[in-house]
Amino acid sequence: MTSDVEGLVKAAGSHDARALGKLLSMVEDNDPALPAVMSALRGAGVHASYVIGLTGAPGVGKSTTTSALISLWREREQRVGVLAVDPTSPFTGGALLGDRVRMQMHATDTDVFIRSMASRGQLGGIAASTPQAVRVLEATGFDVVLVETVGVGQAEVEIAATADTTVVLLAPGMGDGIQAAKAGLLEVADLLVVNKADRDGADAAVRELQNMIATGADREPGQWRPVVVRATATAAGGIDELVEAIDKHRAWLASTGAGERRRVDRAAHEIRSIALALLSARIGLRADDARLGELAAAVVVGTIDAYAAAGVLVNES
Amino acid sequence: MTSDVEGLVKAAGSHDARALGKLLSMVEDNDPALPAVMSALRGAGVHASYVIGLTGAPGVGKSTTTSALISLWREREQRVGVLAVDPTSPFTGGALLGDRVRMQMHATDTDVFIRSMASRGQLGGIAASTPQAVRVLEATGFDVVLVETVGVGQAEVEIAATADTTVVLLAPGMGDGIQAAKAGLLEVADLLVVNKADRDGADAAVRELQNMIATGADREPGQWRPVVVRATATAAGGIDELVEAIDKHRAWLASTGAGERRRVDRAAHEIRSIALALLSARIGLRADDARLGELAAAVVVGTIDAYAAAGVLVNES
Repeated sequence: MTSDVEGLVKAAGSHDARALGKLLSMVEDNDPALPAVMSALRGAGVHASYVIGLTGAPGVGKSTTTSALISLWREREQRVGVLAVDPTSPFTGGALLGDRVRMQMHATDTDVFIRSMASRGQLGGIAASTPQAVRVLEATGFDVVLVETVGVGQAEVEIAATADTTVVLLAPGMGDGIQAAKAGLLEVADLLVVNKADRDGADAAVRELQNMIATGADREPGQWRPVVVRATATAAGGIDELVEAIDKHRAWLASTGAGERRRVDRAAHEIRSIALALLSARIGLRADDARLGELAAAVVVGTIDAYAAAGVLVNES
Repeated sequence: MTSDVEGLVKAAGSHDARALGKLLSMVEDNDPALPAVMSALRGAGVHASYVIGLTGAPGVGKSTTTSALISLWREREQRVGVLAVDPTSPFTGGALLGDRVRMQMHATDTDVFIRSMASRGQLGGIAASTPQAVRVLEATGFDVVLVETVGVGQAEVEIAATADTTVVLLAPGMGDGIQAAKAGLLEVADLLVVNKADRDGADAAVRELQNMIATGADREPGQWRPVVVRATATAAGGIDELVEAIDKHRAWLASTGAGERRRVDRAAHEIRSIALALLSARIGLRADDARLGELAAAVVVGTIDAYAAAGVLVNES
């Protein structure tokens, strides 16, 4: 087993896409050999990729923007890894995969690796496995790793927040889309992109965002103030400016030491997630032996309350 | 402390809205006395409310539908409790609370209790605290408890799925809204409501949903098949039909024993959530003493990998 893992890690490090895909499947499936994989990746040496999170409501143009960003980075001879994180749903798997077609123009470029990630029911879901997937791409020599998520829920927002630079995409005139986007998305943004900037309402959206940033009481002095960029990603408009803004944020992170702190925070978050999954697996095992079912039935008839039942479960684990 | 808790529980049981509000704040804040509250509520006797989950994308008319449902249930002399669960965001608190204005017509009815719930950063967030809030309303004598959530993420979908009957609201012609709604919402639906049924595209939406249900390979024989209802909630259109469909589902749950199983599953889920929060608090305590920070820094420089670090944390806890 261990030698298999080492072979895979070595092959992935030599830019073998199949080996890389296999390692990411192991992450997705929460494979029992995952701890060995992570240990082998660490042994292969730390290669720090620059990690960019890209999030936004459905329909704001995330895939198009990602594709335009890949093109620009490739002009700079950067190796680019993309993790496209989808909420799991048997009903929509097809539709969401369809979006990925927009990135197909990069399919034959061996220095671009694109992977759709879905959580398969493990605890913590996508939020738990994405940092591991990023580690795989980091250790195998990608210069830039872009994590694209649909910004619809707290978990997705958290994924975006695990990046070095978090980019939130909005579109003008989305009505409820913008309202939803505001729900948790703005707090995590280092950069805000108003995409589809040729549409009515783009100026108003930019102004609204700039006002929000200016009045943001939650930013301390010396903190980064989010930058607003206008883009028309379908025509690659504003992508230069977006990459410039990313570079500026990257330089700021490096010069202030904020980048280092962010990486430590990210690692702490990752360790906690894994630790929680380990503990949960312990409880899960006990649940298999019908103990949880007994306790649940007792809660329903009122012989014990849920807190007391949880205490029993924890103390027995 | 314990006597305070018993006083509160007693007052809430006598329909004292202030005491009820206090208990729900304790749930939201994950108050240290919460285990005592839950024990006292159990001691007060099990009163089973019928719990209805109502979810859908922003803008489909959840608040309007909720308000119309409350009116109908009040005609039947049911005591109605509503938990309106909002994703937390400092930016949108105001906007989302604005929606609640639509329910203000019930504000003076002492047999209606409406509460906005927000997670305040505790582990598991809203998903963890909502079942506890439902228990508070159950134990204090509400006939019907309606849990309204914005269906935007996995956590919100899970909240809806903790109900006896889960109603998913859709609106025709929402484009991406419907696509987003499909992401995880349809699997949890017992009833589907196409609201704003006077709009173009309503017939197509109903047909599309009925086709999806008919071809749904994931439903075993003898399982409930979701019912599609058309509504125009602003004019209370279709609300009678919705309540009829809820009653039909309720009768089905009772006659097949599926309702009992669902309640046990729900309790099991609740116990696991609390147990996980208890375990997480243990890890959290250790994190305070800088151990997690040390391990995170070691992961960043590559002297240990995140899995190994998590193992250290768990074994020390």
